Amino acid sequence: MTAATTYAEAERKTALAAIAFDRDGLVAAIAQQHDTGEVLMLAWMNRDAVEKTLATGAVHYWSRSRAKLWRKGEESGHTQALVDFRIDCDGDTVLVLVDQVGVACHTGRHNCFFNAVRDGKLVPIAPVVVDPARMYRK
Amino acid sequence: MTAATTYAEAERKTALAAIAFDRDGLVAAIAQQHDTGEVLMLAWMNRDAVEKTLATGAVHYWSRSRAKLWRKGEESGHTQALVDFRIDCDGDTVLVLVDQVGVACHTGRHNCFFNAVRDGKLVPIAPVVVDPARMYRK
Repeated sequence: MTAATTYAEAERKTALAAIAFDRDGLVAAIAQQHDTGEVLMLAWMNRDAVEKTLATGAVHYWSRSRAKLWRKGEESGHTQALVDFRIDCDGDTVLVLVDQVGVACHTGRHNCFFNAVRDGKLVPIAPVVVDPARMYRK
Repeated sequence: MTAATTYAEAERKTALAAIAFDRDGLVAAIAQQHDTGEVLMLAWMNRDAVEKTLATGAVHYWSRSRAKLWRKGEESGHTQALVDFRIDCDGDTVLVLVDQVGVACHTGRHNCFFNAVRDGKLVPIAPVVVDPARMYRK
């Protein structure tokens, strides 16, 4: 497990100033496994989620469906440690390089992008590696 | 250059039915270089952009700023050939594996995620490899 990257207050202000949050106060965040390049998931961050991610090195998102701040893995234990934080050319998307503990997807798959068309059907091309019923049981 | 992947009409219908377009009729699309894993850009697709991408193998997006369908590289020549099309667990993001010709970013960098905090400053960590003034000159 890679040690998480954290940023000092002045650095966090610099990063936040470069982000163009949308009309809902959110920015799209792509999580990518830092060493393999695997795209794990896309979620959303508000200003507070960016701040907490950069300050603690534990990746936080804003849940649009639950309308709350969410530390990735807070229930499942499948956390994301921040490795590097990149902002795109027009500031409306961030690329979060992480070290994923366990799996990124709530279905128990390692990443969320497992649906693909094969032989005319939409099929899951990645295995379930953790039983989702066990991921969220306290 | 990899030959582009295309999908038959029934396959396109299957893929489109699995996408949860948002209130604006859009889905977030992450473009990733298929062989290196480099995350190139994030843009948006409407139903027509998905249809044209899957039918032709040339990646199309919906430009929110210009409110028009856009074939990647139509002006710059820096096209994206479709390699595989993945839909995420809840259908609101797609991962488009592509073979990028030239550069993905309008700044002339290979990808859009080049801003990072280094020594307290936000700096571009990727070089400009194509002069942007030359990319859009007809």
